[in-house]
Amino acid sequence: MLGIGILGCGRIGQVHAKSIRTLETARIIAVADAVPEAAARLATHCQARVETAHDLIAAKDVDAVVICTPTDTHFELIHSAAKAGKAIFCEKPVDLSTDRIKDCIKVVESAGVPFMTGFNRRFDPNFAALRARLTAGEIADVELVMILSRDPAPPPVSYIKSSGGLFRDMMIHDFDMARFLLGEEIETVHAVGSALVDPEIGLAGDVDTAAVMLTTGSGKICQISNSRRATYGYDQRIEVHGARGMLRAENQLEHTLEIATETGFRRAPAQHFFLERYAGAYLAEMSAFVSAVENGSAPKPSIQDGLHAQILADAATVAHTDKRIVKI
Amino acid sequence: MLGIGILGCGRIGQVHAKSIRTLETARIIAVADAVPEAAARLATHCQARVETAHDLIAAKDVDAVVICTPTDTHFELIHSAAKAGKAIFCEKPVDLSTDRIKDCIKVVESAGVPFMTGFNRRFDPNFAALRARLTAGEIADVELVMILSRDPAPPPVSYIKSSGGLFRDMMIHDFDMARFLLGEEIETVHAVGSALVDPEIGLAGDVDTAAVMLTTGSGKICQISNSRRATYGYDQRIEVHGARGMLRAENQLEHTLEIATETGFRRAPAQHFFLERYAGAYLAEMSAFVSAVENGSAPKPSIQDGLHAQILADAATVAHTDKRIVKI
Amino acid sequence: MLGIGILGCGRIGQVHAKSIRTLETARIIAVADAVPEAAARLATHCQARVETAHDLIAAKDVDAVVICTPTDTHFELIHSAAKAGKAIFCEKPVDLSTDRIKDCIKVVESAGVPFMTGFNRRFDPNFAALRARLTAGEIADVELVMILSRDPAPPPVSYIKSSGGLFRDMMIHDFDMARFLLGEEIETVHAVGSALVDPEIGLAGDVDTAAVMLTTGSGKICQISNSRRATYGYDQRIEVHGARGMLRAENQLEHTLEIATETGFRRAPAQHFFLERYAGAYLAEMSAFVSAVENGSAPKPSIQDGLHAQILADAATVAHTDKRIVKI
Amino acid sequence: MLGIGILGCGRIGQVHAKSIRTLETARIIAVADAVPEAAARLATHCQARVETAHDLIAAKDVDAVVICTPTDTHFELIHSAAKAGKAIFCEKPVDLSTDRIKDCIKVVESAGVPFMTGFNRRFDPNFAALRARLTAGEIADVELVMILSRDPAPPPVSYIKSSGGLFRDMMIHDFDMARFLLGEEIETVHAVGSALVDPEIGLAGDVDTAAVMLTTGSGKICQISNSRRATYGYDQRIEVHGARGMLRAENQLEHTLEIATETGFRRAPAQHFFLERYAGAYLAEMSAFVSAVENGSAPKPSIQDGLHAQILADAATVAHTDKRIVKI
Repeated sequence: MLGIGILGCGRIGQVHAKSIRTLETARIIAVADAVPEAAARLATHCQARVETAHDLIAAKDVDAVVICTPTDTHFELIHSAAKAGKAIFCEKPVDLSTDRIKDCIKVVESAGVPFMTGFNRRFDPNFAALRARLTAGEIADVELVMILSRDPAPPPVSYIKSSGGLFRDMMIHDFDMARFLLGEEIETVHAVGSALVDPEIGLAGDVDTAAVMLTTGSGKICQISNSRRATYGYDQRIEVHGARGMLRAENQLEHTLEIATETGFRRAPAQHFFLERYAGAYLAEMSAFVSAVENGSAPKPSIQDGLHAQILADAATVAHTDKRIVKI
Repeated sequence: MLGIGILGCGRIGQVHAKSIRTLETARIIAVADAVPEAAARLATHCQARVETAHDLIAAKDVDAVVICTPTDTHFELIHSAAKAGKAIFCEKPVDLSTDRIKDCIKVVESAGVPFMTGFNRRFDPNFAALRARLTAGEIADVELVMILSRDPAPPPVSYIKSSGGLFRDMMIHDFDMARFLLGEEIETVHAVGSALVDPEIGLAGDVDTAAVMLTTGSGKICQISNSRRATYGYDQRIEVHGARGMLRAENQLEHTLEIATETGFRRAPAQHFFLERYAGAYLAEMSAFVSAVENGSAPKPSIQDGLHAQILADAATVAHTDKRIVKI
Repeated sequence: MLGIGILGCGRIGQVHAKSIRTLETARIIAVADAVPEAAARLATHCQARVETAHDLIAAKDVDAVVICTPTDTHFELIHSAAKAGKAIFCEKPVDLSTDRIKDCIKVVESAGVPFMTGFNRRFDPNFAALRARLTAGEIADVELVMILSRDPAPPPVSYIKSSGGLFRDMMIHDFDMARFLLGEEIETVHAVGSALVDPEIGLAGDVDTAAVMLTTGSGKICQISNSRRATYGYDQRIEVHGARGMLRAENQLEHTLEIATETGFRRAPAQHFFLERYAGAYLAEMSAFVSAVENGSAPKPSIQDGLHAQILADAATVAHTDKRIVKI
Repeated sequence: MLGIGILGCGRIGQVHAKSIRTLETARIIAVADAVPEAAARLATHCQARVETAHDLIAAKDVDAVVICTPTDTHFELIHSAAKAGKAIFCEKPVDLSTDRIKDCIKVVESAGVPFMTGFNRRFDPNFAALRARLTAGEIADVELVMILSRDPAPPPVSYIKSSGGLFRDMMIHDFDMARFLLGEEIETVHAVGSALVDPEIGLAGDVDTAAVMLTTGSGKICQISNSRRATYGYDQRIEVHGARGMLRAENQLEHTLEIATETGFRRAPAQHFFLERYAGAYLAEMSAFVSAVENGSAPKPSIQDGLHAQILADAATVAHTDKRIVKI
């Protein structure tokens, strides 16, 4: 039975807490949050203690921490938890600075603690099935990967300003997925972007619509597109072409009902946003973390996966801003 | 090169004429119609002669006749053509009276002429693919056949009055399809029907919405449903269940475009009616007739197939009217 | 907070227990089972007491009972629980005898306790969406309902022998659904059936493949088909035709992945069986029961719904056995 | 009745001839081909004269020419036909050199003859429906266009060597489609490519797998991908995202049949190649050409459209070869 401490009791902290409660091999010992009410509410729901982050990390019955606090606090918490010998699950991004991530890698490796980066999409049942068939060789060698991610609506411009920009805040998931599916490191990055959804986003120095092309050493190609808007639900699709065929994972719709009238055949919108679409993924992710820690195997995606995705996000940002092709 | 005479230059006669013109092994020699203008128009288009039905059947360069006249004229034309030694393609139904069809069978068999009944749906590429896979054993033995046919809108009540009723006029296609797919003769017929689309149809003694269950000697089951109304296009679907799986043929939509908005994902309506949906079927049907005649093989569906479908249509009419289960 | 006692700790009892644990307004107080180990295991998991059925029903902190025991025990438990003033959730079928169900109705009405019959499919998100659109008038008046249910594989013949037969054991769900969607009581029942999946089922006096036609007073028609076998997963579909169009609810597939190769485009099988397909339905069902009891509204489906479905199942059994059309 | 001369009697010449034969407002007067047998065969089939290209262009009863000869002969034929005052339909590409196309534009404009460039895909019913809805504003302003084209198998390497390369030979269709859908001229071109299908193609200096990003002045983005291989049929899809939703046109499959077995639900492959998929497009294209000439309206796509597509193909070739972003 793995004792877990939740650091950060906001939306994503609650999601992970819910997942842990359904696992038979883990339980929530304590929770911490800068907002006392948030911590208290989650603690009551989970029958767990409220503690400061410092005390939670120090607690003897806490074997692992789940870091769900704002990105700029990850660095300190990773350092403290690693030094305290705790297994660490950290939400993406590990940090907006690759130098600081490298520093985290050092402390994690020196402490020898398990570390998992929260790229939840690897655990989506549809994408996981895609990856499994790819690995099984069903379409032979990968030639082209196409990833599309569209949020239902943009976040507040205030959030955008501190987000690091679309390539680091939103497309980072797709960079991790590209690496996961290509099976090879990226060598060149092309990126374009525009503020077409909301001019305020442009004024804030960011884009809301973007496309990227990646190439690998052996010539594999990946196309990514992102938008902060989709009227028909959260659009999350992947398509992979190989020598023997194609694999594509479609959206999950709200239900399977179809209505046929004079205007044709109409199916439901895609599930609204990440809490709905990735409900299964979050559960599988936390289950994988707990299993890895209990089995003594290295959790995946690793902290290095977190670093590599960040490097690609930085490269895409530069490629877009400087209007040039960036080599990794 | 097979010389063909078209008897009846209405809508379906024109469809067959168009098909024959694309075949390299047949050509239209002459056409006949009770309405001189109709015959003249088609003759010009096909560069063929206009003749009376009598002369057309007698013409030496006419090897085969395609009978597209009103149902009550089929009997005489079949007799004349058979006696003149012509190959015969006759639109469904051969006749509304099974006794008269049996009489036609006699004259056709005694003349030894090829005869094909115009059940076009057997030649629909989707249904033909379904039948081919069934015959290839892909789902093993058939257990349940489901056939659904819905017209986009009811014909005029005047037509309904002389049609023989829905079971003979519309569902006869489905009875032929049931026999084609079950691979076994029908033993019992259950039938229910209502006038839900248009009360005038009910007043005319007919139904516009109906369902039938058929069983065979070995216990196979077939469900059929018909309606004179479908707002979303001509609805023509078949589903067959066997020991190893299911085969289903979906509608052909107007195009493959999908639009996604707040209300979900919308595809086009089904193709409007039989001229659109069965365009490919009509061509394949006439091609099969010409090939069979030229090769000396017996065309299928045969005149006996026409008889069997009519027997089932009569049985369903009785089952519905007398509210009893009819044994064949 | 509603205190609940679980009567019967087998598979379906565990499903309901799991649902209740996720509800914020109910908790499991006690569980009972004829097999002590089964009760002990579920009690541990739910942090609930183990009790005899008698004591559980008598317990002051138990406000409602969830009856998941074998069908032949329902009658006694319903009587005891009603007399003890408990709200009752009872798995389908209430009883295999309509007379005994009528007797249960008397005791329930006389006690004035809330009663819900466990027809879970009404709560399936896809079917619920279908019903909601129907009620909203999106396709206007219903004309034809088509329901198909196929289990992935037949149960043991030993189970079949005491099941009451396919029409009572399996199709009873579809009879309830037919009533739910037609919005009108059934007047006539046609039924046919065969043992095509396993001859042992036929020797046991039952069928494994069956089809039914129902009609209502206003002439609406319902077609149902059932089979104990489907190689491609649990097949659960409904299609409803109305004056303005069609509504159809498709299966839920295991995932949204599609693979394209020389043989075409392949999607995943349907979810395996009822635990997977109706996971959401079971949760919504128990949530509806708890809400109704807490709000003082009458839970639906009612015990009368349970009776009506049983009457139709009996009628279909007679229609099949006696080879006649049965009037209700 | 428009009199038409066919220049070039190979595969595409035969396709256009077949289309013209079904039109009521045009007929084929004469055909010409460097291979006398090819010309003779088509002439017999169309009941047309065989002539030299020179005589055909000079013939008084020829109102329009359809140029289907090898690309390097287009320049001369366009000049001759324009000077002879004939309406011109010319297969894509007009020429591999943009300078020579500009020269053709001069002679065509100076002669004042109608000219249509054979970008058949604009006439595909699915893409045409997509464009019609776009123009009707159904998804509001375009933000992102995604075009995917994959041939079933690569052409011979000998063909590749003289093709001008994938960007000019294959992706030129997609460049025209991008312009057609974006409604704005392209400003920047990113391109990457690899020889992943056949190393011989790489040795011949070309690629067989490629991706391109285009941007417009207002920041709209277009992603294109091409491959010379698709095991599951000719893959031709377009997806357009706008402020109010998405439009996507899927492939046309061989038929609508679906088979369900233990491995899931399988549909047919996409139609094999361009002759099958674009059969409807070729007919609509020729019909549009004939109508435009008869009505005196300017046929679209114009010769300028041919030029613009060629400019983009050149730009993509340079972008790929020089590994730089190209501004138009």
